[in-house]
Amino acid sequence: MQVVEDIYEAQKTFEELRQQGRSVGLVPTMGSLHKGHVSLVERARLRCDVVAVSIFVNAIQFNDVNDHRQYPRSTEADLAMLASAGVDFVLLPTDEQMHPKPMNVLITTSGAAELLEGVHRPGHFDGVATVVAKLFIILGPGLAFFGEKDFQQLVVVRRMVSELHFPVEVVGCPTVREPDGLAMSSRNLRLAEADRAKAPIVHRAILAARQAYAAGETSGRGLIAAMYEILSSVQDLVIDYASVVDPQTLKDVDHVKPDSRLVVAVHLGSVRLIDNSAVGGD
Amino acid sequence: MQVVEDIYEAQKTFEELRQQGRSVGLVPTMGSLHKGHVSLVERARLRCDVVAVSIFVNAIQFNDVNDHRQYPRSTEADLAMLASAGVDFVLLPTDEQMHPKPMNVLITTSGAAELLEGVHRPGHFDGVATVVAKLFIILGPGLAFFGEKDFQQLVVVRRMVSELHFPVEVVGCPTVREPDGLAMSSRNLRLAEADRAKAPIVHRAILAARQAYAAGETSGRGLIAAMYEILSSVQDLVIDYASVVDPQTLKDVDHVKPDSRLVVAVHLGSVRLIDNSAVGGD
Repeated sequence: MQVVEDIYEAQKTFEELRQQGRSVGLVPTMGSLHKGHVSLVERARLRCDVVAVSIFVNAIQFNDVNDHRQYPRSTEADLAMLASAGVDFVLLPTDEQMHPKPMNVLITTSGAAELLEGVHRPGHFDGVATVVAKLFIILGPGLAFFGEKDFQQLVVVRRMVSELHFPVEVVGCPTVREPDGLAMSSRNLRLAEADRAKAPIVHRAILAARQAYAAGETSGRGLIAAMYEILSSVQDLVIDYASVVDPQTLKDVDHVKPDSRLVVAVHLGSVRLIDNSAVGGD
Repeated sequence: MQVVEDIYEAQKTFEELRQQGRSVGLVPTMGSLHKGHVSLVERARLRCDVVAVSIFVNAIQFNDVNDHRQYPRSTEADLAMLASAGVDFVLLPTDEQMHPKPMNVLITTSGAAELLEGVHRPGHFDGVATVVAKLFIILGPGLAFFGEKDFQQLVVVRRMVSELHFPVEVVGCPTVREPDGLAMSSRNLRLAEADRAKAPIVHRAILAARQAYAAGETSGRGLIAAMYEILSSVQDLVIDYASVVDPQTLKDVDHVKPDSRLVVAVHLGSVRLIDNSAVGGD
């Protein structure tokens, strides 16, 4: 496994790989890796000659300074995990090289990016779109793998790829969960013990809405009520949103279809958790 | 000479060319071609295996609807000119394919992009940066050729290339002039006869400032005065700006150096003309 810090060295390496006709799959991460990331690597491994992972805690996508400062970092453990998962190449860029200052160029996103997380994390998706575009320009992957856990990110990245005409297939991969249903996330590490015990309620609320739909409830309002009923049973949990949305536009839907998306964001203590699912199940 | 409308067909063609190790030079244009464009093609011809020209009147870089509507179009003459200049490939994309609606992704530019033209043409450079980035992603050139006549555009494109890490060498090429000194521009065609007669005053004002510098005037204020003296001698000419700026930041400079840039923008009738030169000459 080759580990490279310098983005221009990486760019040169991948230009040569593409000239040799090798297919490249990229898994962009912010490190602090868990089984969810490994599942992305495994999918990339199945479809690509060369599997590249980037580890970069992208400051410009954090709207909250504390969230950025507290974001967990574990580069050594990450590299060990990637090596044993059969990764070929790891890009570990510096802030200074990835985002040289003054930063005068930004990829801005509107539409679906302005809803849900966009309301609660202003600027977040511009930061995501900018760093993902830079990674695509540096490494030139033919495929890129993103978790469905960050469903809106997947929608925004797909839109960016389509509008900017990147020759990249964006592959969305199913959310990996703890045995109690909590969606795997690097931020779970920051949950206090009592909050960790409460956290599976988010997935249970989503399952309750799916059950209500399976039982015949087809209104967005009805499914939202089913989620709120579960979520409000837990003390000290703050709901940012619990909605049913169109899977492309992310606008609220009232007449629910199987691919309509249940999306939830809550705070437990200082940690913000998100989760989602298709109404008809994943 | 191959002429292609479909951007994905072009993308595939150029991916194959790069795999064959051929060097690609791109000359992005908005058509209505003149000798200035031909000089860009000639420079590309000298340095690249494959010379590609794009012709696309990029609606999103026009802040003025009338300017967009009146922008001259002459595709047949353009293609004849490019064929005889030895161009290999012409991309003629449609609006719908280049900028699919709704347009939710935009490359925004700040810093140098907010000064000079940025003040008078809000949004202009975001439109330029977005289409140039798309062309780079579609065609993947190793070199791209831009005229120094649009000096600020050259600065903004260089910054975009550097920040987004495009593996593209941006080559600035000298302004080509009419015998009377007027910088060649597609918009010159729209000048009324009386205004066309007045138009060389812009270059004369720049030459006057260069002469003042050569004679020992080293203050920005002094050079600006020399330009205004010439420009104000012409009736019905409206000055947007006549400044001396740093060639990277485009901020006003008072202690002038040889590479400080004289930049002028004026209106003659409904036509807006720009020109520039290094203080020490080009």
